[in-house]
Amino acid sequence: MASGGEAQRALQYEQTLMYGRYTQDLGTFAKDEAARLRLQRGDGEGGTPRPRRPSELLEYTQGRCAPCRVCALQCQQFLVSKVGEDWVFLILLGLVMALVSWAMDFAIATCLQAQKWMYGGLDTNVMLQYLAWVTYPTVLITFSAGFTQILAPQAVGSGIPEMKTILRGVVLKEYLTLKTFLAKVIGLTCALGSGMPLGKEGPFVHIASMCASLLSRFLSLFGGIYENKARNIEMLAAACAVGVGCCFAAPIGGVLFSIEVTSTFFAVRNYWRGFFAATFSAFIFRVLAVWNKDEETITALFKTRFRLDFPFDLQELPAFAVIGIASGFGGALFVYLNRKIVQFMRRQKTINRFLMKKRLLFPALVTLLISTLTFPPGFGQFMAGQLTQKDTLVTLFDNQTWAKQGVSDEFEYLGILEAWHHPRSNVFITLVVFILMKFWMSALATTIPVPCGAFMPVFVIGAAFGRLVGESMAAWFPDGIHTDSNSYRIVPGGYAVVGAAALSGAVTHTVSTAVIVFELTGQISHILPVMIAVILANAVAQSLQPSLYDSIIRIKKLPYLPELGWGHHEKYNVRVEDIMVRDIRYVTLNCKYRDLQHVLQSTKMKSLPLVESAESMILLGSIERAQVGALLSHQLSPQRRLQALQQKALAEDGHQLSDAGIRFQISTETSSGAPARAAPRKPLKPALKRVPSSLAETPPAGTADHTGIALKSLFCASTSAEPTEEEMDLGEKMSPSEILDWEEQQLDQPVDFSSAKIDPAPFQLVEHTSLHKTHTVFSLLGLDHAYVTSIGRLVGMVSLKELRKAIEGSLTAKGVKVRPPLASFRDSTASAGEPDTTALRQLWDRHQHHPMPREAGPGGDDGEDTPRGQ
Amino acid sequence: MASGGEAQRALQYEQTLMYGRYTQDLGTFAKDEAARLRLQRGDGEGGTPRPRRPSELLEYTQGRCAPCRVCALQCQQFLVSKVGEDWVFLILLGLVMALVSWAMDFAIATCLQAQKWMYGGLDTNVMLQYLAWVTYPTVLITFSAGFTQILAPQAVGSGIPEMKTILRGVVLKEYLTLKTFLAKVIGLTCALGSGMPLGKEGPFVHIASMCASLLSRFLSLFGGIYENKARNIEMLAAACAVGVGCCFAAPIGGVLFSIEVTSTFFAVRNYWRGFFAATFSAFIFRVLAVWNKDEETITALFKTRFRLDFPFDLQELPAFAVIGIASGFGGALFVYLNRKIVQFMRRQKTINRFLMKKRLLFPALVTLLISTLTFPPGFGQFMAGQLTQKDTLVTLFDNQTWAKQGVSDEFEYLGILEAWHHPRSNVFITLVVFILMKFWMSALATTIPVPCGAFMPVFVIGAAFGRLVGESMAAWFPDGIHTDSNSYRIVPGGYAVVGAAALSGAVTHTVSTAVIVFELTGQISHILPVMIAVILANAVAQSLQPSLYDSIIRIKKLPYLPELGWGHHEKYNVRVEDIMVRDIRYVTLNCKYRDLQHVLQSTKMKSLPLVESAESMILLGSIERAQVGALLSHQLSPQRRLQALQQKALAEDGHQLSDAGIRFQISTETSSGAPARAAPRKPLKPALKRVPSSLAETPPAGTADHTGIALKSLFCASTSAEPTEEEMDLGEKMSPSEILDWEEQQLDQPVDFSSAKIDPAPFQLVEHTSLHKTHTVFSLLGLDHAYVTSIGRLVGMVSLKELRKAIEGSLTAKGVKVRPPLASFRDSTASAGEPDTTALRQLWDRHQHHPMPREAGPGGDDGEDTPRGQ
Repeated sequence: MASGGEAQRALQYEQTLMYGRYTQDLGTFAKDEAARLRLQRGDGEGGTPRPRRPSELLEYTQGRCAPCRVCALQCQQFLVSKVGEDWVFLILLGLVMALVSWAMDFAIATCLQAQKWMYGGLDTNVMLQYLAWVTYPTVLITFSAGFTQILAPQAVGSGIPEMKTILRGVVLKEYLTLKTFLAKVIGLTCALGSGMPLGKEGPFVHIASMCASLLSRFLSLFGGIYENKARNIEMLAAACAVGVGCCFAAPIGGVLFSIEVTSTFFAVRNYWRGFFAATFSAFIFRVLAVWNKDEETITALFKTRFRLDFPFDLQELPAFAVIGIASGFGGALFVYLNRKIVQFMRRQKTINRFLMKKRLLFPALVTLLISTLTFPPGFGQFMAGQLTQKDTLVTLFDNQTWAKQGVSDEFEYLGILEAWHHPRSNVFITLVVFILMKFWMSALATTIPVPCGAFMPVFVIGAAFGRLVGESMAAWFPDGIHTDSNSYRIVPGGYAVVGAAALSGAVTHTVSTAVIVFELTGQISHILPVMIAVILANAVAQSLQPSLYDSIIRIKKLPYLPELGWGHHEKYNVRVEDIMVRDIRYVTLNCKYRDLQHVLQSTKMKSLPLVESAESMILLGSIERAQVGALLSHQLSPQRRLQALQQKALAEDGHQLSDAGIRFQISTETSSGAPARAAPRKPLKPALKRVPSSLAETPPAGTADHTGIALKSLFCASTSAEPTEEEMDLGEKMSPSEILDWEEQQLDQPVDFSSAKIDPAPFQLVEHTSLHKTHTVFSLLGLDHAYVTSIGRLVGMVSLKELRKAIEGSLTAKGVKVRPPLASFRDSTASAGEPDTTALRQLWDRHQHHPMPREAGPGGDDGEDTPRGQ
Repeated sequence: MASGGEAQRALQYEQTLMYGRYTQDLGTFAKDEAARLRLQRGDGEGGTPRPRRPSELLEYTQGRCAPCRVCALQCQQFLVSKVGEDWVFLILLGLVMALVSWAMDFAIATCLQAQKWMYGGLDTNVMLQYLAWVTYPTVLITFSAGFTQILAPQAVGSGIPEMKTILRGVVLKEYLTLKTFLAKVIGLTCALGSGMPLGKEGPFVHIASMCASLLSRFLSLFGGIYENKARNIEMLAAACAVGVGCCFAAPIGGVLFSIEVTSTFFAVRNYWRGFFAATFSAFIFRVLAVWNKDEETITALFKTRFRLDFPFDLQELPAFAVIGIASGFGGALFVYLNRKIVQFMRRQKTINRFLMKKRLLFPALVTLLISTLTFPPGFGQFMAGQLTQKDTLVTLFDNQTWAKQGVSDEFEYLGILEAWHHPRSNVFITLVVFILMKFWMSALATTIPVPCGAFMPVFVIGAAFGRLVGESMAAWFPDGIHTDSNSYRIVPGGYAVVGAAALSGAVTHTVSTAVIVFELTGQISHILPVMIAVILANAVAQSLQPSLYDSIIRIKKLPYLPELGWGHHEKYNVRVEDIMVRDIRYVTLNCKYRDLQHVLQSTKMKSLPLVESAESMILLGSIERAQVGALLSHQLSPQRRLQALQQKALAEDGHQLSDAGIRFQISTETSSGAPARAAPRKPLKPALKRVPSSLAETPPAGTADHTGIALKSLFCASTSAEPTEEEMDLGEKMSPSEILDWEEQQLDQPVDFSSAKIDPAPFQLVEHTSLHKTHTVFSLLGLDHAYVTSIGRLVGMVSLKELRKAIEGSLTAKGVKVRPPLASFRDSTASAGEPDTTALRQLWDRHQHHPMPREAGPGGDDGEDTPRGQ
């Protein structure tokens, strides 16, 4: 078992061998581990014989029932062995998420029903009705906000930005725990049950990811295969697809949406995971509805009944294009509004301080405002206030024309459709009011600190906008545009579908909302209008604003690399040499321990470059900070000090015994005579046993403090008068000043790197790599830093931070900073290929004229080469 | 202009700076170039004033018309400036491809109509009918095969395997030329017009790619932005989507299918290109049909009319699952059969030799066989032989139940539907015969050397299989499965849709065929059955056989990296050190020209590693073979020889003039006295002018021969007696033996690398990188080789070839070669992290004990370190 653990540790180290953090690793180690386990199982048969024994016993004692039990046990073993397979995990994930989704939908529907029932039961008194209408959501939202705040504040909001960051390879603490899961599920149920314009899609992506993470941990009880970061990230990507898939019963759209929203580069060979899990999940989700007798069979969530023969006329396409373009502007405006609200709330210090004190006041106030405005007998009558989000969508996707036909008698949703027909107003005004009010309401509501998404509200607004255009078209061309013999009327419901896809696509910057609407409505007849509108909406929105998720990432300052948008040509002229950090701390192969100490004190970098020598600066690899610390603390460790002491004593006593350990044992335990030389290491044991016991008081401070102790002992010895317990113990043999001398002497020794683990191939860039390419490489390989080298010589370093600054710098100051200050010193046409050859020539010259200057030279002439690139 | 060209060359060099071939570069340089061009336009305004001048003149002379012209010119300038934008390119590509697709469809339909007409017109005589039925396709196929063979043999086959390889970054010659385009378009039209079971999808991917490539070249006349490989590959990826999109009018499915089929890693930010172009193309393609009055409006290609309310019962799902699993086996069988036919034809030497002589015989024979069997009055009556592929699909997707209802009267395709109802047989037998016959016919027909795909034939077979299951289900449950009040009958057409998606998904190993069928049929109501069947079919097929495209790649031995399939755990235990080439040729920084010559003679590698010295082996970069050749030929160039001669002459004459050029001019042209020293380079001109003129006879052999010349002059001088013209010319000053001496002397000089272009950051791996990770990195970055280093020291090299061998080795000998021979020498658990530290310790020891051994030591003790890793 110990060797297995060691092997695993070695493997995990090997995983980071190549790059600092290589997220796209695609389960290499999961599979390595699986192969290893399989081999072990094949070779050793260590664990399997044991469970078989009781069954064999049973066969002798019980007779008839035994074969069944043997069979059952074999089945069980088979299942346990198969638990390691991906598809078992994906099926479990799909199943759990479908159940969660269905249960939540059921709970939300019950909540909404309860509100309707309360509202309907109190129809004798408007005041009471109002109180019931307003209090119910306020209580729910406040509870949701409070509950989330107390249990896990990480559950607040959509979760897609965080998932995007996590999938990028950044570890966000507490975002995938059971606590957050519970907070998110319960908080989201309450928030949606309140009837506020909030969505469940984003949170579901987060919930599915948490579910996958928890499931991994649970299944890892059956074997070590799940304890692997690369594999987990792979599974998280599949989980995101499941989240969208089981939320909308849209497996294809779910996979595509999750890819577009969370990934930068997508491994096609992981495609099937998402499809498999999302399909299974959507299937179970819909089957549950059938079993619950909600539906007769498996159909779409918001089934439409548009005619198939002639879905739309060619001449209607301009109208669809208009919807697309308008949605693009609308989407950008929504993102802008949402961000401004958040920033306003943050900037207003007085408001902020007040709200921070009473954390639940802001959600309550917002809910009060929104629910007051939607109160059906009040202003709500002009904006179909009594409809739930689901009812709204159903009515908007209706295939009748409202303006002309009025409420159709044969229509089954008669009751809810009436909401759009105010007796003193017409459908157009209701729709316009609905769109305008819902727009700011949704932008405001999504800033409430509860688990909530913005996809569904935006989707509904888009549908309403599409419906508005469709109704206008229907009013304009009452008999359809086509002038041929058989005239087909315009279907405003089709416009609603197009609008929904376009606006949600614009807000999230995705094209796959098109697929989602097809799967949601169960009809694909409007594919071309939808595609045209979505692409136009994306083109407009992407040129105006970041996506909602990127906007939140920026607001929350999550460690994510911004995307390079379209047409930001100015920053393709930036090169790595313009943004890299030149003044980096490094470790040389022939350095002294004192240098290590200086480096550790002067930098906070997690890994340090190891160069051959300060003169040559040839990059040999990178060494982790912890390793450097360990080296240093080992060098200054009390054990070595004791050994040194003992050696000194030996030298003083004039004894000539070669083994220091034996000598030490003699001097401390004062045993008479020389012990047997046959086992020279063994007698050391008692002495060593004593030293750790004396050290046992200090280690509880943590393993990371190892260096700290050593350094403290170094500095404190001269400044502080009172000796620590440790020093007391060792003080018997060495005085503080002696220790200081000894440590100074130790620090002057050259470093022995033989015990340190070194990453021999940290990722390297060259000075002329463009910002664009650097961005590509960083996002492709999930790096967080890279060294900049020039023919093997380390000249700088670029980390995620510099890269983000460079991209954002040219993003915000668009048009002003066409080239960064540093770039202007460079003649872009003439010197493109030259510096490499210059540097090479220098290296070559060095070889030619003074053949061995590396160790011999004082480093003065070579040192000047480094800032040459400027 | 010269400096611009230089800058561009420099940029193109810079592009390969980072890795040998970095395909995923995402248009960095296109954009760089765009920014540069914009800057130039902004700064210089070099080209714009000129076209304006005539318009300004016009304004003075003509008056009224002038503003229009100014306006038109400005529009033109605007358009030209916008031509550089991606979307212009994508729109043009979509437009052209839609036109091509539509025109081809029209031509194919005409061809098929002609056959029908001939067959119908000769109904008095069966013999004549047979002759017409058989001759027509034979002539067309033979013409297609001959035409393709003569014009461009690269046009043969699907083209998807080649596109996959090209997108991987490998340059395949002649695959994207105008000739191939013409051959493919005309050949494909004839092949499909013959009515053979061939498809147009795969070839369309190829055609679209060629179209994109040609369009790039055409548009590059307007500016330099299109002359960039990375950008071209990006555009080719979009073109693949366009190909599928405009072939099936399926934009979403097209994008997804092309991603699945051609990519390994997909950049999400390129997503929109595909969507945009494919949507536009599909739109135009369908609009053309509307304008041609084929359709009333834009609808799906194979529109179905299944009921929306109750598309299928929950209890029908097992039947769909059965279709999926059976399709999986069928798909694997199809790929196997196809490969076996090809291999059989290749192995049978006698057949092969005979067929090779008469290249057109094989296509003619196959066509004769297939068309004889489908002859409607003959055997064809049992397999609906008279139906074209399109008619077959339309009838298979029909929403009536054939078995029970017989031919429905109200059905509009009355005529063609009758084909399935043989008077002396029943539908089931017809379907079974159809499936069995078409199966081997399609597998055989796709091996004919004409441009053809296999997607459509497989799709049709799948549909027929689905229909068969559906009809069986309908016969089994005549009133539907559901036992409730309102019973819904089973829709066999839905089964046909599921079967088509499943079988084509199994053959191509894609999930996106699901989306393609939705777009093809215009209905998405069967989404869950389709998804379930496609996933099951993929699971089965992928575990049995490679995809059809991968199979062709393997048959054609294209330079493509095979995918790692599911569950091949055994090869994750292989490491780079097991597969790398250890004995590689390298160039050292302090080497002599003679060494370069040896290296060039001993290896064929396109790029050579440059190491610091043979002892240290520290990798400094890689240098291209051509660069090494250029260095060598420059060193041995006649010019330098002349200079040397002249210097020698100088030395002999005792003159002390410093400038060699001047001296030379004096000695050859015998001008009296010393010329002015102010312009020392100028007088050299006449002499230089003469030398190229004498060399002008030899260069036509090609620029790659530069080294060849130099080397030839070196070797030939001693062996061949007759002096070449060049030597004759120079022989006046130097005798052959003198030249030999001089060259020997030159070869002993150390190399001056200052003029060579060196890639300072070739991609590096470490010895312990697993095969799986290596595969990932290679496919992610599109590498074709990587150096294996150990702390900066070059220890080996891995190229695509080794990697492919390693993967295929463990793929073919599954279960036998669990670990490769080399791996068995390694203790996998114990030595995981050790060798790095060992190597490091050696390096460190070297520093400790003999501080400067690199140049000083004879290299004996360090040289032994290199094969240490074994």
